[in-house]
Amino acid sequence: MNWNRSLPSGTKDKLFREANGSYQVEKQVNTILTQRGYQRIDTPSIEFEAVFKQQEKDEKDFYRFFDKQGRLMVLRPDMTMPIGRVLATTGIQPPLKLSYSGKVFRLNDEMLGEQNELTQAGIELISYSSIKAEIECLSCAVEILEELKIPNFHFELGHAQIFRQIVAFLKLSKKEAKELQSYFYNKNVSDLQKFTSKYSSELDSFICAMPRLFGSPREVFSIAYELLPQESEILRTVTELEELMICIQEVYPKISLTVDLGLVALMDYYTGVLFSGYADLIPEIFLRGGRYDSLVEQFGVEPIPAVGLGINLDILVALQYQLNTLAPLKQTTTLVHGSIDQINKMEKIVKEEPTYQLSLFDTLEEAVTYGKKWQYKQILEVTKAGIKTIKVGEEEWPV
Amino acid sequence: MNWNRSLPSGTKDKLFREANGSYQVEKQVNTILTQRGYQRIDTPSIEFEAVFKQQEKDEKDFYRFFDKQGRLMVLRPDMTMPIGRVLATTGIQPPLKLSYSGKVFRLNDEMLGEQNELTQAGIELISYSSIKAEIECLSCAVEILEELKIPNFHFELGHAQIFRQIVAFLKLSKKEAKELQSYFYNKNVSDLQKFTSKYSSELDSFICAMPRLFGSPREVFSIAYELLPQESEILRTVTELEELMICIQEVYPKISLTVDLGLVALMDYYTGVLFSGYADLIPEIFLRGGRYDSLVEQFGVEPIPAVGLGINLDILVALQYQLNTLAPLKQTTTLVHGSIDQINKMEKIVKEEPTYQLSLFDTLEEAVTYGKKWQYKQILEVTKAGIKTIKVGEEEWPV
Repeated sequence: MNWNRSLPSGTKDKLFREANGSYQVEKQVNTILTQRGYQRIDTPSIEFEAVFKQQEKDEKDFYRFFDKQGRLMVLRPDMTMPIGRVLATTGIQPPLKLSYSGKVFRLNDEMLGEQNELTQAGIELISYSSIKAEIECLSCAVEILEELKIPNFHFELGHAQIFRQIVAFLKLSKKEAKELQSYFYNKNVSDLQKFTSKYSSELDSFICAMPRLFGSPREVFSIAYELLPQESEILRTVTELEELMICIQEVYPKISLTVDLGLVALMDYYTGVLFSGYADLIPEIFLRGGRYDSLVEQFGVEPIPAVGLGINLDILVALQYQLNTLAPLKQTTTLVHGSIDQINKMEKIVKEEPTYQLSLFDTLEEAVTYGKKWQYKQILEVTKAGIKTIKVGEEEWPV
Repeated sequence: MNWNRSLPSGTKDKLFREANGSYQVEKQVNTILTQRGYQRIDTPSIEFEAVFKQQEKDEKDFYRFFDKQGRLMVLRPDMTMPIGRVLATTGIQPPLKLSYSGKVFRLNDEMLGEQNELTQAGIELISYSSIKAEIECLSCAVEILEELKIPNFHFELGHAQIFRQIVAFLKLSKKEAKELQSYFYNKNVSDLQKFTSKYSSELDSFICAMPRLFGSPREVFSIAYELLPQESEILRTVTELEELMICIQEVYPKISLTVDLGLVALMDYYTGVLFSGYADLIPEIFLRGGRYDSLVEQFGVEPIPAVGLGINLDILVALQYQLNTLAPLKQTTTLVHGSIDQINKMEKIVKEEPTYQLSLFDTLEEAVTYGKKWQYKQILEVTKAGIKTIKVGEEEWPV
């Protein structure tokens, strides 16, 4: 193996300020969540493959391997399914406000330049059917993004039922539904026109308008109401979404909200409102969430209403890096040097001054060389007789 | 799949107090390390297998899998080798004091009941040849263990060269060395006697005494000096170890230090002093470290002197759990309830009182039921007209 700088696709080393900033961001998020009354949950990175089996659209997206018993394992691609597993298999009693942070893993194609290992933090509101839970998710997100000084962030909302209800109304097969899904996803007008000519119904004009049914809520909803058949299920879903958005806008008049009626849920477990979060200067969506009232069903228990969201912290750290708002590193100005028999005294001096650091060099010369190189202000030399200050870079140091 | 509580071998779910306590412990450790001037480094969980190839005694101990290009990957079993890779392949300039925390993975046999996924924190002192670096490692450990209120902890020291110098002196083959290593590891007297009768030398009595050359430094060193040939390399190594231990004991007269001359390095990269940390009430060693001056050599660069240690935080969390010294959960006493149009007012009230939490229930009845179940003191009902206090469990609530 040639030891060059290559790393597994989609992974990276974080050093110094980036590593520290990244850790600080995770801490800030967790502090907010604890203050808001969330309880932390920490599930393993390794899960049985079956935990995610029913969800993923493309099974190739997982890291898979075998354990010693030959059972198929995966590195978790998200935190929501493992939390569903915990809810279904332990005796913990909802309602619950859960929070998490940690690594998730995705086996992306090398060429896509996507993250294969990323740090995610998020919440799951379990057994809350009120739209207060949706609002709480967005309140959390707003508090986090403001705390992290992310400028000009936006939320885009959609609803998982719109697509499902179209599929049910047109009685589409799984294959046909997948086809329609890809047209929605790619906002492909001509394919949608071909599709509606094949599966014609009173929804045709709504379906064909889908690629432009995103943006300003006022406009999008007014077009949708014109196109949707009266008293249809989809109309009720769209109305529900509009009511929620009006409600959010009243609570947060200043945040930027857009709607996308063609938003397709990335995970099959979503049943209601879908959120995406993005910001100027960031090409990727860094926040995703929504309502999933049937998550635990696949683990063989009764459905529980739930809402959650996950934030890709690495993307926010990258933005902070770009904006130079990452937490600064501790500045050390002074190296405290002395022989080993002075260590207790030196430790005491260092503990009292956050900008002081212990010298681990054998000789004073080495300490001074290091101090000069890294622009320390001074070296304190601790001896039995007392403490001598050596200004670095000045002529006081007798060469 | 039967959705019972079974999880992949050696993994566990942490909930509520344990998850929170675990996160707090990691935070406390990282805070101490930052204060001591360490710089954080964060490498991926997934590495090319070659990074660990030359180290592991039993290759079956890794989780292995392929990436999309068919390259062999592993989940990192430790943090030291990846840091060696970073040092060897990037332009970062030692001396450095690096710290890390995160998950490491080991594919243990199910029956052993060992952790397959564990949280480790640690430090690496790079390019420090002074024994001040060894003392700094133990100072860090002492500060961490005192901060975490771990009672009665002990450090056991050994030296990686003792075993190596015996092997070199006896000119043992790799296979013979492995055999001797297992006798050392198991403190097997009769096998050592058979071994020395086969490979007889002036070291025989020292080798055969090995199974009892651990415990109180004063006794162990005095026996060793009687048994070791004058002016042998091993004598010099043992003397070096004693000097270090005397030095540590002077700096930390109160800490409990033992020696084990038969300590065998678990990883091949160790070249000098070895540390183990253990404590009463904990069956496992929770801290390991030592000096490894040739770590980066395997990545094809010049050797750099280095010392490091890693702490298994999960073991310390389990002890805190047992001793009931885990960080307490935030106590919530009050649920603040109201209709959605009052959310801003409610958010403001909750933010000002750490023991208050927002109610996400639609109705006041649900909030009261929840408050009763979880022994809240009161519900505050926020309306346009003002705030009404409902004492939970008392008769003030009009049914």
